[in-house]
Amino acid sequence: FDNITTDIEEALHEAELIFVVVAAFLQEEIARTCAPFVHDRQTIILTPGNFGGSIQFSTELQRAGCNTLPKIGETECMMYACRKKDPTTIWIRGYKHHLGFAAFPAKDTDAMLTTIQPIYPTYVPRKHVLETGLSNPNPFVHVPLMLFNLSNIENAVDILMYHTAFTESVGSIVAALEAERLSLNAVEGLKLLPMTKIVQGYYAYQGARGETLCELHRSNPIFSWTYLPKTLQHRYFREDIPYGLVPLYSCAKRFGTPHSAIQALIDLSCVATQTNYYENARDLRRLGLGTYSAAQLLRFVVDGLPGSQK
Amino acid sequence: FDNITTDIEEALHEAELIFVVVAAFLQEEIARTCAPFVHDRQTIILTPGNFGGSIQFSTELQRAGCNTLPKIGETECMMYACRKKDPTTIWIRGYKHHLGFAAFPAKDTDAMLTTIQPIYPTYVPRKHVLETGLSNPNPFVHVPLMLFNLSNIENAVDILMYHTAFTESVGSIVAALEAERLSLNAVEGLKLLPMTKIVQGYYAYQGARGETLCELHRSNPIFSWTYLPKTLQHRYFREDIPYGLVPLYSCAKRFGTPHSAIQALIDLSCVATQTNYYENARDLRRLGLGTYSAAQLLRFVVDGLPGSQK
Repeated sequence: FDNITTDIEEALHEAELIFVVVAAFLQEEIARTCAPFVHDRQTIILTPGNFGGSIQFSTELQRAGCNTLPKIGETECMMYACRKKDPTTIWIRGYKHHLGFAAFPAKDTDAMLTTIQPIYPTYVPRKHVLETGLSNPNPFVHVPLMLFNLSNIENAVDILMYHTAFTESVGSIVAALEAERLSLNAVEGLKLLPMTKIVQGYYAYQGARGETLCELHRSNPIFSWTYLPKTLQHRYFREDIPYGLVPLYSCAKRFGTPHSAIQALIDLSCVATQTNYYENARDLRRLGLGTYSAAQLLRFVVDGLPGSQK
Repeated sequence: FDNITTDIEEALHEAELIFVVVAAFLQEEIARTCAPFVHDRQTIILTPGNFGGSIQFSTELQRAGCNTLPKIGETECMMYACRKKDPTTIWIRGYKHHLGFAAFPAKDTDAMLTTIQPIYPTYVPRKHVLETGLSNPNPFVHVPLMLFNLSNIENAVDILMYHTAFTESVGSIVAALEAERLSLNAVEGLKLLPMTKIVQGYYAYQGARGETLCELHRSNPIFSWTYLPKTLQHRYFREDIPYGLVPLYSCAKRFGTPHSAIQALIDLSCVATQTNYYENARDLRRLGLGTYSAAQLLRFVVDGLPGSQK
């Protein structure tokens, strides 16, 4: 089977396994576009899900009238490190090993992994989509690198993002965010892996070395030629804050764990770009889970809700 | 009279008017050093006071056993824009007009100004040392410029601090801090001038133009050749946070005015430099004023306290 098309009906017709590879802020629209053409003999993988991607995709399909829901799952990060070079060329620099995967609801994870592993054999299961959603390294690295290089970005300076701009003090900020993220493990049923373990899993085989996220990124040969963006209107802010940091903030606030560094980072990013990233973020409230206790939330991501899944 | 000495007794002997021109974190020590040699026929000017400088200087003199207190006052900022070029040369690039001045207690301000104006004729009176302490533009400009250029500082990049590094989004942060500062005017008895008016007063005569602090700094010819620091261990953090931003934060918290941008900036600066700037800051608590109501605080800076002044 080999077909490239922009016709969504044609693309989905007879597809058993569907990968949705778009920025988080487009997932909702893609769900609505797919809704008339998907059914319960299909499997949809959001890669990555970002926080709550599978939950929202599922909700949107139902809202759009799809009553034979496909199986839905997500990865915690993109499977490739790549860049579009021109309209017909992609430069794939790296391929992540041990990429975390979970279905929504999580009771489907093992069965879905069996379907996917012939294509992506190194995916590993995570407990549920809260874990994948909170295990994407992007927000923790991208947002500090953007914010603490504001003038370089606005001045469109050519600067190597990881090798040059990721200095020790930026690393201290990243470490503080990570400490707040790991505090969420105080919540019964959450067991987030340290980001260093996750990134080592992805990239150690390609040469990434170190004990901190700063070291792991600076030493990763596939990141050698990544330049800092030259605009603040970039997915490193527009995706990573409302679909990464704000959801984390909403969980920490809901469950009473520390979040002052996360909040400070979001607040100053809002001010710097004159954008309220809280407003349209995919946080617990937006997903309709704002009043759930931790136990209810965990039960929801593992079992689904009556009516939300067949 | 013309004498250069490092002997404090010799320096203070027969001096009527004494200018203390040191970074805020040294004022306490200078007070202790001066205490045995000063008396009530002298006038001491801290330039600048930074927040609470005169109050603390007065307290330290008393603690050190000085029971014939000199008159004490402060300016809101340094009178010159200058740099030390080598051990015997200072490069004076600018001289501030309309520099705010207040005595502690403020009932002495007019008399002290009469003493000073033959030397510095353009000083203007402020209501009290809360006003001078909260009207120093340095913390509002220096700290954002440091924080949003972290990697440039650590990489010791040659970059023009005002002309290049002070970009529009850094200006947005500065404006947010300024808005929170002006919110303090909700407190009865406080009437802080906008920073733009203050800086126009200082530098319009030298060519500074614009409606925002960003424009005023970028257009100021005397700032043309100011380079960004090359170390995070710099007074732009070590002085401007604990003697500028944290005191402002402590006032805003005490009086219930907005302070989220200020707090975010302090929090991330703490994380970036692995320093707790709150701990030894000269805030209301440190000055022994932490439990004062706004009315008590205002009365204190205008009239002094029984026992604190003769």
